[in-house]
Amino acid sequence: MLSNKWLAALVSVVLCAALPLAAETNKKDKEREPGDHAHSVEGSGWWNIPYPESFDVKLLPKPQDHIRIDGNQFVDQQGQPFFFRGLNIADPDKLVRDGQWSQALFKEIADWGANTIRIPVHPIAWRQKGKQWYFDRLDEAVIWANSYDIYLILDWHSIGNVEDGFFQHPMYQTSLVETRNFWADMALRYRDVPTMAVYELFNEPTVNYMGVANGLGDIEWDDWLAFLESNIDLIRAYDDKVIPLVAGFNWAYDLRPFAKAPVRRPNVAYAAHPYPMKAQPKQRTKANMFKAWEQVWGFMADDYPIIATEIGWVQADGYGAHVPVIDDGSYGPMFTEYANNKGLSWCVWVFDPDWGPTMIHDWQFTPTEQGAFFKQVMQQQ
Amino acid sequence: MLSNKWLAALVSVVLCAALPLAAETNKKDKEREPGDHAHSVEGSGWWNIPYPESFDVKLLPKPQDHIRIDGNQFVDQQGQPFFFRGLNIADPDKLVRDGQWSQALFKEIADWGANTIRIPVHPIAWRQKGKQWYFDRLDEAVIWANSYDIYLILDWHSIGNVEDGFFQHPMYQTSLVETRNFWADMALRYRDVPTMAVYELFNEPTVNYMGVANGLGDIEWDDWLAFLESNIDLIRAYDDKVIPLVAGFNWAYDLRPFAKAPVRRPNVAYAAHPYPMKAQPKQRTKANMFKAWEQVWGFMADDYPIIATEIGWVQADGYGAHVPVIDDGSYGPMFTEYANNKGLSWCVWVFDPDWGPTMIHDWQFTPTEQGAFFKQVMQQQ
Amino acid sequence: MLSNKWLAALVSVVLCAALPLAAETNKKDKEREPGDHAHSVEGSGWWNIPYPESFDVKLLPKPQDHIRIDGNQFVDQQGQPFFFRGLNIADPDKLVRDGQWSQALFKEIADWGANTIRIPVHPIAWRQKGKQWYFDRLDEAVIWANSYDIYLILDWHSIGNVEDGFFQHPMYQTSLVETRNFWADMALRYRDVPTMAVYELFNEPTVNYMGVANGLGDIEWDDWLAFLESNIDLIRAYDDKVIPLVAGFNWAYDLRPFAKAPVRRPNVAYAAHPYPMKAQPKQRTKANMFKAWEQVWGFMADDYPIIATEIGWVQADGYGAHVPVIDDGSYGPMFTEYANNKGLSWCVWVFDPDWGPTMIHDWQFTPTEQGAFFKQVMQQQ
Repeated sequence: MLSNKWLAALVSVVLCAALPLAAETNKKDKEREPGDHAHSVEGSGWWNIPYPESFDVKLLPKPQDHIRIDGNQFVDQQGQPFFFRGLNIADPDKLVRDGQWSQALFKEIADWGANTIRIPVHPIAWRQKGKQWYFDRLDEAVIWANSYDIYLILDWHSIGNVEDGFFQHPMYQTSLVETRNFWADMALRYRDVPTMAVYELFNEPTVNYMGVANGLGDIEWDDWLAFLESNIDLIRAYDDKVIPLVAGFNWAYDLRPFAKAPVRRPNVAYAAHPYPMKAQPKQRTKANMFKAWEQVWGFMADDYPIIATEIGWVQADGYGAHVPVIDDGSYGPMFTEYANNKGLSWCVWVFDPDWGPTMIHDWQFTPTEQGAFFKQVMQQQ
Repeated sequence: MLSNKWLAALVSVVLCAALPLAAETNKKDKEREPGDHAHSVEGSGWWNIPYPESFDVKLLPKPQDHIRIDGNQFVDQQGQPFFFRGLNIADPDKLVRDGQWSQALFKEIADWGANTIRIPVHPIAWRQKGKQWYFDRLDEAVIWANSYDIYLILDWHSIGNVEDGFFQHPMYQTSLVETRNFWADMALRYRDVPTMAVYELFNEPTVNYMGVANGLGDIEWDDWLAFLESNIDLIRAYDDKVIPLVAGFNWAYDLRPFAKAPVRRPNVAYAAHPYPMKAQPKQRTKANMFKAWEQVWGFMADDYPIIATEIGWVQADGYGAHVPVIDDGSYGPMFTEYANNKGLSWCVWVFDPDWGPTMIHDWQFTPTEQGAFFKQVMQQQ
Repeated sequence: MLSNKWLAALVSVVLCAALPLAAETNKKDKEREPGDHAHSVEGSGWWNIPYPESFDVKLLPKPQDHIRIDGNQFVDQQGQPFFFRGLNIADPDKLVRDGQWSQALFKEIADWGANTIRIPVHPIAWRQKGKQWYFDRLDEAVIWANSYDIYLILDWHSIGNVEDGFFQHPMYQTSLVETRNFWADMALRYRDVPTMAVYELFNEPTVNYMGVANGLGDIEWDDWLAFLESNIDLIRAYDDKVIPLVAGFNWAYDLRPFAKAPVRRPNVAYAAHPYPMKAQPKQRTKANMFKAWEQVWGFMADDYPIIATEIGWVQADGYGAHVPVIDDGSYGPMFTEYANNKGLSWCVWVFDPDWGPTMIHDWQFTPTEQGAFFKQVMQQQ
């Protein structure tokens, strides 16, 4: 039943008259275990499925600035430049299975000096676990991150061609409709939550597959822009503070088409995933790497804020070595110097010993080569 | 196996050559319980799933006029004006769960004076129960309604933006493809059945959500028209007598865009859901309410037949009170006077004690305030 | 884990950095039973689902020519004309259920003189059994067919309007996305496999249903062309040798729209399903039938290679008799004479005693009337 509190809040809101009267059933839903939610629908009648609620900002342990865009940089509430610098964790679904989803994980990451955690939500897990399960996990992430003054980048972790419905792997399969609904759900849930700072709309758009050009079909640039803009409009309908983060093709590497046809919305940031093997200068000198980066994606930093939301490397014989992440180790200092020159934000992939290139050998958080390097860089920032 | 009767009927019909030979298996399917149908597919081979059949009009207990459109009104077979005036019941799925799906329910409604029952089919229930289950229930509804000379309005009870795939609640989730197939299935099933008089194509189109403008995206008017027209064409392919009923945005309240760009198909009726709080004149006088209704939807009645397929109210402290259905009770006489002036058809929401605003307190059919009012109006018509 | 072999192969390939490390889990997957694959996902983590692999051509028992298109005919590697002449089997899913999926079936078909087997994959079965199950079956089919120098035509066996999502029967339900992914999966799997010679993109496009014109909606010709071309481009991204086979409306009977607007891609063949009742001359003389065929589809053979991938008949009182396959038996000699005149390829429907019109009475392969006729024709070719 809609309470009087609701009524007061909704007097100016036109809701449908078919709204069912949920009454006692909804309370019982809330006592259930995470993940068990889906099973409750049949029993209590589909007309009693609860309506969504926004996260209550009063639950945040600490005050935290809303980060916003000013020109080509991020700034805090005092207008001082802010750089998102941190790391990626695995999907909450994997971390829960591994028994690693806890505030202790966030504390460890804070100890490493990160001010940002990027959380990849894989569409396959989103469907398996359900919306409420992810809300519950992300609520926890928001509270834990906030307690260490860490910001979150929420990442819809798909790879492929969402226009045509081709993806690089079953875990990345999604659709335009599912993607839109994911962002509408998130924008409603976390509006006005400063900790949830950035929404990365689509992890890595690409039309190539296993070395086959157009193996995932084709996307017109205008269609990709329209996809990004429609998702931004949707997010903005609920939340005018969160920062949408958009990517270009070639697995979020190539920002050049945006130079001619940028996103026609204000206050948008751009993503790049400049793994070591993405740039292929004839001679791998620092100058040549900087030049290659500048031409393909770095140039955008002159006009827009950029977050390199996936960086990282591993030696050719290291765990999880694969194209394009293999490097002799010169990448770390080279990239961070470039990032400092350009004022870039970044997140290392990945703070999980099973995925690669990893920052940690094990759940005792023993740093790998890149882990030790970025830990030092983050702790000195 | 296709029988000789079929052969005779289909000599001029070009069916695919891959048609399987169903033979004995289909007979067994027909002996199964409703709702159990889906489980039969694997066992008997998917190539033996039966083809659909139309409802046999010879099963109707009584002769009944085909209602049709003449100018801006509905007329019976003698050309006399006809007004659909009755009420909504809950989804058959809910009524079956509650043990209330029976001829006795239809008899009670006939005793209240209704000549029309609107049946909302919720997409979530349509998928859970399956096509055959709903055919079985609607077959029953047709026979029961016909026996009391009641007409049915079949309503695809979705709320939201079907173009972009956003809906107000999980129970309303559907798609363009599912909606089209629903209407094709229904049009084939109930062609030439006078009792099944009106198809309301999409209950309440809206792009707003919980007070957020464009929280459900956006729809271009041309796209909405194309949606309506393609569904009408589809229905007309099977049945040239049934009346398609179309709605405008703002939860089926705003018909103004149709004034400039009406549906480009003949013999279409328009829907309105003018709940008490939808019109918001500065002073809530009858004259002002009539004027507000006239401007937004009532004007269409000068050129087209209108059915207000959802009307009703409840006191602010009544069961299920919520925006936009709250009223002090003046709405009832006011609306029916307007409806008489304009020659409108209407259906009250809802003849179910759990949903709101309800007409009955309980399954003994004790009338609520609006229930008592509309019962008297209907019995005097 | 990505092995060093992979690394070597992929140095020039840009794969996503999120690639998971499959390690031991994948090995276990390979030991599972066909069809059990889907159940392994949850247990081992969705990030360990194996990536696809191409069929290893070294597994083929015998060398076999790649058939290609030269002008309006098919030719072998010596440039000599080649005619695909054989038959359809049932869906592998049905044959496995019936215990008939074996090399013995292919040997029997080879003994009947067929040089071609068309394999229809029904979308409903594709979803029920899963991609890996079909890969396993088609791998077997490739090896068995190759051992008898038989070619395969792979047929996505849908009937209906894939643009709008209407299909003639549940077994044919699919979508644009599923269809595209089917062909991308197949093109990657069987690239460079000469045995897998032809991909029939969509069995029978039609907008009519059970005698109702536009009962399945409508398709613009430009949209149909775009559908065909996008699938061809996708297949060609993986495999530049396989021959795409395209159909026209009226259940793959009407090729006339292609005369004005052909597929704008080279090396494409056209399909026709000229069952006996599709042509309806006033007098059923051979000359009139030839003329009718010529006007509607046969004329295309002057410029393009044609495969009549479904032909066949049954007497009006025979098993599985239905429109449009009923004939007095004159169809067989008439069609084969026309095919010889025009240089057509063809496949008889169907080498399965349960489906119709059938070539065999039973699994002892007792020939039916059409079975005996076509067996003789094939053995003499």
